[in-house]
Amino acid sequence: MLHNSNRRLDFCFMREFQLLQHVLATARGSGDVLIPPGDDMAMVRVDGSLFLAAVDQLVEARHVNIETTPVQLVGRKAVTRCLSDVAAMAAQPVASLAAVTFSPNQTEDWATQLFDAINETADRYGCPLIGGDIAVHRQEQSPMVIAVSVLARPGPTPPVQRSGARVGDVVYVTGRLGGSVDDRGLGRHLTFEPRIPEAIELAQHLGARLHAMIDISDGLGRDASHIAQSSGVRVEINADAVPAHAGLDWRRAMSDGEDYELCFTAAGEVPDRIADLQITAVGRIVPHDDPQGSPVVVRNGAESFDGSQLGWEHR
Amino acid sequence: MLHNSNRRLDFCFMREFQLLQHVLATARGSGDVLIPPGDDMAMVRVDGSLFLAAVDQLVEARHVNIETTPVQLVGRKAVTRCLSDVAAMAAQPVASLAAVTFSPNQTEDWATQLFDAINETADRYGCPLIGGDIAVHRQEQSPMVIAVSVLARPGPTPPVQRSGARVGDVVYVTGRLGGSVDDRGLGRHLTFEPRIPEAIELAQHLGARLHAMIDISDGLGRDASHIAQSSGVRVEINADAVPAHAGLDWRRAMSDGEDYELCFTAAGEVPDRIADLQITAVGRIVPHDDPQGSPVVVRNGAESFDGSQLGWEHR
Repeated sequence: MLHNSNRRLDFCFMREFQLLQHVLATARGSGDVLIPPGDDMAMVRVDGSLFLAAVDQLVEARHVNIETTPVQLVGRKAVTRCLSDVAAMAAQPVASLAAVTFSPNQTEDWATQLFDAINETADRYGCPLIGGDIAVHRQEQSPMVIAVSVLARPGPTPPVQRSGARVGDVVYVTGRLGGSVDDRGLGRHLTFEPRIPEAIELAQHLGARLHAMIDISDGLGRDASHIAQSSGVRVEINADAVPAHAGLDWRRAMSDGEDYELCFTAAGEVPDRIADLQITAVGRIVPHDDPQGSPVVVRNGAESFDGSQLGWEHR
Repeated sequence: MLHNSNRRLDFCFMREFQLLQHVLATARGSGDVLIPPGDDMAMVRVDGSLFLAAVDQLVEARHVNIETTPVQLVGRKAVTRCLSDVAAMAAQPVASLAAVTFSPNQTEDWATQLFDAINETADRYGCPLIGGDIAVHRQEQSPMVIAVSVLARPGPTPPVQRSGARVGDVVYVTGRLGGSVDDRGLGRHLTFEPRIPEAIELAQHLGARLHAMIDISDGLGRDASHIAQSSGVRVEINADAVPAHAGLDWRRAMSDGEDYELCFTAAGEVPDRIADLQITAVGRIVPHDDPQGSPVVVRNGAESFDGSQLGWEHR
């Protein structure tokens, strides 16, 4: 059991992380679970074939403002969030399932448009919607919840996990970071392209030199700490090197989250670009020899910061 | 687009059915989708292997009263509802994913116990939890939503679909029906055993004579109409034959729902029991030669009723 367990969920520090850790600790992967829960996707063997699966939620008022966001972009993001997890494993999407609980005061028109958008997005990215469930809250004004599960198969290379980072690796990110959500709740977090083809090309190009990968949804600081902790290493990030979107400093770039770019660690030479996507070296993997120290350290000139707290806790 | 689409969702008649029909009509199964959405589970081919998938939701205040229901039974039902879909296909569960959005005023203790119950139930039925997502509503008192996706593989026989019923088949149900939810919201709907081993034994015993199967969640009336409509036939049910739980009449037995027994159609001899489970012939499949007529007709002496409206619309 977790300590301090009578706290309300909204007062729990790092709640999601703790709860998921608890699930991980107790979820006994059987012999057929080759990648257990805790990575971007799990991998299972069924009758000799490998497939991967993950689930993500999009919650009204928490992750999306449905008053200001076009319904097409709500449905799109519900699917593309999951596809970013597929990219993080360098896997290929296969199929998807969508479950939605609507507010009773939502219109049938909007609900239909939402399913159309989910369906079209799933089709466009090669993971046709193969199942769904629709429910309606009993109470007025209850927030909508969308849960999308995505199923995938390994790409041409074995899936890339979070846990493979090695001391001496260089840490890279794709694209630019920060400022994904604007003041009205709109912005790139609704229109990003999941980096699936780039991830597969990267995995093919680097082969066994690509050691660890994650998508940047919580913010580079938090997501790099997931790599560090599951690999038993420390990430050192050079603040000057972090590729920020125009007008943003490294703190914003590392903590805003919702970038849906990739962070990976590799040994040896890495190209500057994959397809048209910029790749930037932002740091390196060092030993984690101080158990009290942070898993992510940001060096900015002579100063050092705890990078693992730079990020947004999706909840 | 659906007609009358500006209606609020809670005013829409047969809403779930219409929306799912819309999803079905527009979800284009690719060549690898062997059973498209609309059945209890869809089936997909990945690298030569077949697997099945489905998603189901358990919504606070709609499907479960979390004030009166022990948390262990909330978690159990979130998983066993999905496993009843696996039984309906005569398939074998493989793995599961759980996504939960909690109210912010829920305690960490309860949330942890819920995941423990989901995890233990998933393990017990051979579909270990391989992934999860946790979110917290922004607004106080927003209802909890649990979405569980289950992945399965075909059993020793090909999966049994809803659409295979043929004129001349006899219609059977397992166990007894009705009264699953008591006045306090407790009862068998929380403790039922998904009929997975019985379904597999039945499919092996009957082989190709087992034509169609569905689990009874909405009520025998509605669920038989799903078989009728997807098979292009009509179901005639003999009210006297419906096996009701003690003290209930055939109307209650056909409409209460949440039984999680199986309804199937078969040609030729069928045993009276499978394992310790009673099997009862309740009707037969006839041609659906009147397009205006109901897909399910209940004969009670000289009277006939539209059986397709006898049931509970899960929403």
